[in-house]
Parts: sequence; C-alpha cells; structure tokens
Amino acid sequence: MKNRLQRLRQRLAEEEINGILVSQPENRYYLSCFDGSAGFLLITPQNKILATDFRYIEQAKRQAPDYKIFPISGDILDWLPKLVADLGVKRLGFEAGHITFALHQQLTDILKPSRLKLIPVDGLIESLRVIKEPEEIELITKAVEITDNALEYIEDRIHTGMSEKEVAWEIEKSLRENGSEPIPFDIIVASGPNSALPHAKPSSRTIQPGEPVIIDIGARVGGYSSDLSRTICLGTADDTFNKVYDTVLKAQLTAIAAIKKDMTGGEIDDVARMAIKQAGYGEAFGHGLGHGIGLAPHEQPRLGPNSPEIVCQPHPLYPPLLQRRGG
Amino acid sequence: MKNRLQRLRQRLAEEEINGILVSQPENRYYLSCFDGSAGFLLITPQNKILATDFRYIEQAKRQAPDYKIFPISGDILDWLPKLVADLGVKRLGFEAGHITFALHQQLTDILKPSRLKLIPVDGLIESLRVIKEPEEIELITKAVEITDNALEYIEDRIHTGMSEKEVAWEIEKSLRENGSEPIPFDIIVASGPNSALPHAKPSSRTIQPGEPVIIDIGARVGGYSSDLSRTICLGTADDTFNKVYDTVLKAQLTAIAAIKKDMTGGEIDDVARMAIKQAGYGEAFGHGLGHGIGLAPHEQPRLGPNSPEIVCQPHPLYPPLLQRRGG
Repeated sequence: MKNRLQRLRQRLAEEEINGILVSQPENRYYLSCFDGSAGFLLITPQNKILATDFRYIEQAKRQAPDYKIFPISGDILDWLPKLVADLGVKRLGFEAGHITFALHQQLTDILKPSRLKLIPVDGLIESLRVIKEPEEIELITKAVEITDNALEYIEDRIHTGMSEKEVAWEIEKSLRENGSEPIPFDIIVASGPNSALPHAKPSSRTIQPGEPVIIDIGARVGGYSSDLSRTICLGTADDTFNKVYDTVLKAQLTAIAAIKKDMTGGEIDDVARMAIKQAGYGEAFGHGLGHGIGLAPHEQPRLGPNSPEIVCQPHPLYPPLLQRRGG
Repeated sequence: MKNRLQRLRQRLAEEEINGILVSQPENRYYLSCFDGSAGFLLITPQNKILATDFRYIEQAKRQAPDYKIFPISGDILDWLPKLVADLGVKRLGFEAGHITFALHQQLTDILKPSRLKLIPVDGLIESLRVIKEPEEIELITKAVEITDNALEYIEDRIHTGMSEKEVAWEIEKSLRENGSEPIPFDIIVASGPNSALPHAKPSSRTIQPGEPVIIDIGARVGGYSSDLSRTICLGTADDTFNKVYDTVLKAQLTAIAAIKKDMTGGEIDDVARMAIKQAGYGEAFGHGLGHGIGLAPHEQPRLGPNSPEIVCQPHPLYPPLLQRRGG
C-alpha cells in the first residue's frame, strides 16, 4: 500500500499536482483497501484522507487505518471546497474518465472563488495498477482456479435439454460455493444460433446435440477478477465447428508463442488476426484478442487492433485447451 | 414504448434540442428495450437510431425492431460527427450525469468544426421513468414478491452459528431459484456489532443468539428491481432492540399514514424523522426514509432531508411488518 501511494505521489509531483480526488471505486480500493460503495480519497504530498458518509465510517476505520477518516453528509460541493482550502491544495487532480460532466461543472462553479485549479487526470492510477504485486497475482490465480474448476464441473454436467439459464446458474453456484465473492460480471451462456451473439444473456433456449456453446465467466477473490471464455460442443462436433475452433485455437497459440516483453497490444493482436485471416475468417473476427485483468475484469493492457499499450512481462500461460473441446 | 418516445420528444422540443445521445444503460433500455452492455441511442424528431458494436448487432435487431441499427466499431469520435451531420442535428443533448468529463472534452474538440452545439441534459429521461406504467408495476410487484418469499425462507432457516456469508448465499439462491435475474446489488447481511455498519459486506462472522441481523436485498424481474431492508433478531430480543425496532417501525407507519399526493420527499421524511427524534434517537438517523425503485434499485423520488422531489400517487402499501420480528 505504501509503495502504491509513493508511486502515485511521484507521478503527481511530475504533473505538478498537489492534491488528487480519487472517485473511481477500483482505484479508491487499490490505494486505500476501503471497499465501500461510496466515498472519495483526497491525497496530497503530506495527507491521505478518506471521505465517506455515516454508512461506512466504521468500515472505513477498519479497512483503511492509515487514512484520516473524514465523515461527510450530503453533497461533495458542501465539504470539498473547505477541505482542499485547509490542505493548501492549489492544483487539484480529478479522474476525468470517472467524474461526470455535470459534477465537473458544479465543482468548477463552487471552486471558482478559491482560484484552485482543477486538473483532469486520465488513466493515471489505472496505469499504476498494470504491474501486479505478488499478492495480487496470488488472488488472480485463485480466481482463475475457481473459474477453471467451475468449467470442469459444468463440462461434466451439461446435457441436451438443459437451458442456457440453467447452465449459467449451475456455473454460478459452483463459483460461489468454491470461494468466489459475488461474480464480477453476468455469466454468458450462448448456444446454437445464440453463439453468434458473443455477449448474449442466457435465455431459456434448451441446448441440442452437436451445438456449440459459448461460456464466458469470471470469479472474484479478494476483489480480483478472472475472465475466461470457452467454447464447447455438446456431443459430436461437425466439420465447420472443428475448423473454426482449430482456427481460433491456432491463432491463440501463435500469439502466445509470439508475445515478448515490450510488444504493444496491437502487435500481439496482429499475430492472431493474421492467423484467422489466412484461414479465411478475417471478417468474422470483430473481437480483440484479450486484455489485462485485476480489480476490474477488463484492465490495461488491451490486446486489440492498434492498441499502443505495452506488455511488460509475458506470464507463463495455461497449456493448450484442446482437451476442452466436446461436452 | 411509443408513449415513452413521444414524451421524450415533447420534452426535447421544449428545450429546443433536436437530437439526444442516450448513453446511460437504464435510460437506453427504457427507450429501446435493448439490454446489451454497450451502445448509444440517437433520437431526433424523425429518427431513432441504436448504435452498437458487432457483439450486439443481432441482439439489437431482435430487441429494438423499431430502431435503425447502426453498427459501430472503435471510438464514438469515429462515427458520431458524421451521423449527427447527416441527420441535421444542430443542438445535441447529452446526458451530463453520465458522460464523463474526458468524453465530453473529446466530443467538444471533434465537433468544433461542425458548429453543432452540445447541450447538457441532466435527469430528463430519469424524470420520465418516475411514473410507472402498469407493465412496470407488474414486474416490480413480482420482484418484491420474490424478495418477500426469500425473507420468509431465510427467517425459517437462519440459526445460531451460521455466518453472515452463509445467510447471504442462502438468500441469493432463494431469489435466483424463484425467478430473479442476476440480483441488482450485493446482498447485505450484518449481525451483532456489524449491524451498526448499514452497508457492511457479509463476513464470516457467525451469528449469536439475541443478536440483531440487518438484511438488505433485492430481486430483479424483467430488468426491474426490488430493494427491501429488514431487521430480525435471532432468538429473544433484548429491551434495547425492542425499543429501537418499535421506534423505527412507528416512524415508518406514521410516514406511510401521512403520505399524500404532491408532498415532497423532504416533507414525508420529516414526519418519520420527527418520530425518531421524539424517541431520543434523532442523532442516529443518518439514512433517508426511502426512495423510488424501477430499472435502478434507487430512483426518484428520494424521500430524505430537503428532497424537493414530488410523490405523485401513494401506492397501496404492505401491511405493517410487526410479524417479521424474531428469527
């Protein structure tokens, strides 16, 4: 935690910002360990303050003992101006990708007499989150294991006549009863023609023999998410399914083999995209190749067309997933 | 749906806005029935367009057949300027309480050459959502029934030695297995000293005899949420518990009896607050009295201190909850 604050303060000093208002929930948690659903951090070179309302005061004291807990009620406009004035903040950073236009307008209006300058900051704390600490990798690994186990569990149980909704709920129960906190995103189970809708909600459609089923799920452990997507086939797959599956798998394995430190997300995506294009399915590849995971199920770096985000260190990856095919 | 669009267009005409970009997910769903997680509506006096990416095209066609589906990829900056120019939009409304400062800046920059004016609109579609249609009330009623049943279910099963997490998971299973879609917010179960933390996450703390337990849960049906909070006591309640419980119940019943058409949320809250103050617990009442429900678990009108929001029509309310006390 100290290291995180130190890195943040160094970046703020570089930008000549002497106070930052942190409102984005994952960023707030990353810097304070406070996981309530409402509150703001105000971090200056000397101070760290957690402002939250009566519902969370006790929780804030427990979770963020290094922070000064500042009880608030009502609107941010009622307490922020005095607080930043007392702390001598002259250039106040705010999270431009999280604060709404409406709130920014109100803050601008109320801070006008103070001559304090509001400085938009975008993606700064997110960029600190990219490199994971060992404890974070441990939590992510545990979340991935729970997810893998849930996939194995459902592969043993999925059968003709089950509805997508039933499959999704069996998976969710497996995740939750084996250590997951409330899951990070709604489960996707899409069968037959629905499998062409990559973000479909599970429906009451019953799965038929020989149909592809897309399953996209995540678990959450200590706040950290996994995000796994797998395609299986109930019974015997037809030739088209096998060809498409092998194409995607080959693209994935080729990209994994190609990943090197300091490549951009765009370059890695290109490798996979080329393999799919060569197999004649270029038009059908709307998705990006992948993305980072962490406190949010989608984090930097994004592996997709033209992504400039750098991959720092390839992680020893899972063995090929060939054995997963078949239901 | 037609009625909703008509009401929106009338409001836009009053504000001299000839196009609105709808980005807030519940508002997007309210006006189009499209429930994908990404996309924008662009509504003008003559046109209704649903812009979404390849993941949702098929779903959008199914769910929003009256809309023109406009396939997008990449950034909103890549397609919005041409689209609004083609439609002859001169004053484009945007949702100021949802669009971030960063996105607004980018839109301002890219739209500068076009002389199109961006008009912040705040709470307009939310205000259309306040008065529920009969179909909406039916879905909300169903969600409330599922929630009530889950509370009865857990009251029969909760026992000394169960952890808060176990109680929460039993409730969630009851909700989901009796017709709820993925629940609208994480369940709160807070026992003993934790019950002073009104928004606590369920912990592994085991519940002891005579302890108060706060349970705050919701179900979701057809997109519509319920939101019920109940306090029970495992075994025999002590005098303090009974006094506090009765005070809160009396405040609630007094407020329900006082509600009249056209009262403000602040006035109704005052009635309850007075009853709690008279019992000597005024300082402990940090919460507001209540709020509307709908596609979001918190909607207008807010019943809380100084709320100017009007209650239009009191709904026939549930019978007193006295029988719920005791575990």
